[in-house]
Amino acid sequence: MRSIKEKYLALSGGIGGAKLALGLSRVLDGSALTIIANTGDDFEHLGLYISPDVDTLLYTLAGINNKESGWGRADETWNFFATARELGMESWFQLGDKDIALHLYRTNRLRQGISLSAVVQELASKLGIALRLVPMSDAPVRTMVDTEIGVLAFQEYFVKHRCEPKVKGIRFAGSETAQPSGGFRAMLEHPALCATIICPSNPLLSIQPILSLPGLEKKLSNSKAPVIVVSPLVRGQALKGPTAKMMQELGLGTGVPAIARLYQGIAQGIVIDSSDAAYSEQLEALGLQVLATNIVMETLADKIRLAEELVQFAREFSGQ
Amino acid sequence: MRSIKEKYLALSGGIGGAKLALGLSRVLDGSALTIIANTGDDFEHLGLYISPDVDTLLYTLAGINNKESGWGRADETWNFFATARELGMESWFQLGDKDIALHLYRTNRLRQGISLSAVVQELASKLGIALRLVPMSDAPVRTMVDTEIGVLAFQEYFVKHRCEPKVKGIRFAGSETAQPSGGFRAMLEHPALCATIICPSNPLLSIQPILSLPGLEKKLSNSKAPVIVVSPLVRGQALKGPTAKMMQELGLGTGVPAIARLYQGIAQGIVIDSSDAAYSEQLEALGLQVLATNIVMETLADKIRLAEELVQFAREFSGQ
Repeated sequence: MRSIKEKYLALSGGIGGAKLALGLSRVLDGSALTIIANTGDDFEHLGLYISPDVDTLLYTLAGINNKESGWGRADETWNFFATARELGMESWFQLGDKDIALHLYRTNRLRQGISLSAVVQELASKLGIALRLVPMSDAPVRTMVDTEIGVLAFQEYFVKHRCEPKVKGIRFAGSETAQPSGGFRAMLEHPALCATIICPSNPLLSIQPILSLPGLEKKLSNSKAPVIVVSPLVRGQALKGPTAKMMQELGLGTGVPAIARLYQGIAQGIVIDSSDAAYSEQLEALGLQVLATNIVMETLADKIRLAEELVQFAREFSGQ
Repeated sequence: MRSIKEKYLALSGGIGGAKLALGLSRVLDGSALTIIANTGDDFEHLGLYISPDVDTLLYTLAGINNKESGWGRADETWNFFATARELGMESWFQLGDKDIALHLYRTNRLRQGISLSAVVQELASKLGIALRLVPMSDAPVRTMVDTEIGVLAFQEYFVKHRCEPKVKGIRFAGSETAQPSGGFRAMLEHPALCATIICPSNPLLSIQPILSLPGLEKKLSNSKAPVIVVSPLVRGQALKGPTAKMMQELGLGTGVPAIARLYQGIAQGIVIDSSDAAYSEQLEALGLQVLATNIVMETLADKIRLAEELVQFAREFSGQ
């Protein structure tokens, strides 16, 4: 464990981000690590407040995630869901029996007037998670995907339509006024902040909602701590999800250089897969320091090793 | 099946009432039978609107009830409940994974502004129940039990404290203003009403909330159709639940004659168990016509036979 005086901030979406977050949680002391979760995917469904990226982080960090599907809980059962379908309730979003308990807990606490940050912290504690897991904002920001078949709320695009409709644009409803959560702001301004890590999450759907918060990009630029991106692409493809497809549809280019361009002016470092090492010079020309290593995180050992290398890379920026 | 012109109304609580309701549903045409469910037990729990007697009736009439426990669904699983307990949510009221779907359906529909009557009718249809199942009122009436340890909401008394505290009184909060539901009123005034049957339910906890509605006792008295009580006691004991214990604690006496006194002025007939036939004269002296038969309903055949005898008994009142 490193000194608890060093602080690390990691911005994360769901699956890929949660894998790195788990690695970081094994490398850094809990008090040194704050994970900021994207809440642009959050939605209300069957009267339940559902926060998919927060939940993937909670379940992954608690070691109770479903490793096969990448979402939801391990050893889940589906009797609620089957019954709900029999009753004719909307059934395009799968809700496991155990998962429902978490949703109901959060929904009830929010109705009691507790902030989302406080509820997430309660859930993290109850699940035995030592680090700070903080939603990007306590106010609603909702990712809306403009597609060839119309504007879709994120979950409709992602789950109901399985990312199939061609994307024409993305916007984050509410992001003009939503403030970064208190825990997020405090860490951004923390004098001991060593680095802000952008996890290997979809830049358009998972990271952009966070960066869209008012003043956020400026706060990142003003921070003395470097911003380090971990590439969500390996050999031009996302390991999971529609990142490459969406970037192409939006004319944002392909591969790691396209990712780097998205973060130009924000990031100072980038971690790419060894298989993409040939792009290093091109990335350096964009003003980025590059670490090429194996970024595919299959085992826990992979996650820990990548986290170790990443922390070392970050410390080099601050000359430690 | 009898002529659909004859109408029957049955007032019911949970388990015992649901058994007779099931028998009646096999003897009478669906359009001839309206079951009025006690909603005095209803409560909000974990943000869900729960209606225990309605649900016992729904599950029993749909043939998906748990016959061992007497409440909830058959082949139920408990993963929601176990997880909710792990999260520190209130866990004194058991909620099965399948059961939750029904509660969430109802809660969401009520939030949308649909009446409880309409929601119950929707659920009955979805579960393939042909008869009319109608909550006693669309407005809240809440059974409050005054006990030696203080006033308890019904479910707290019944489930949390397992009916153990000595009862000093019972009141029905909201009953001064709650109107009988439209479906209930329509049947009470229906010219073809042949009988109002009071199911073998706890008179104090399940039937009294219904009778406490404004003008209800008068409507029953004014009805040309007889009111026939099926005794909830056999040899002085309830087959399930705290009827005998509560009646004793409230100084209301014991056994079938005490039941009859509770319904004096309301009922014209009473169906008692053959083992209690010795009380017949005493009951007749209270102005009641008596049918003594086997009222223990273990098998479906028991339920159907009792329902047949009951309908025959009712028809004798109207001289058919």
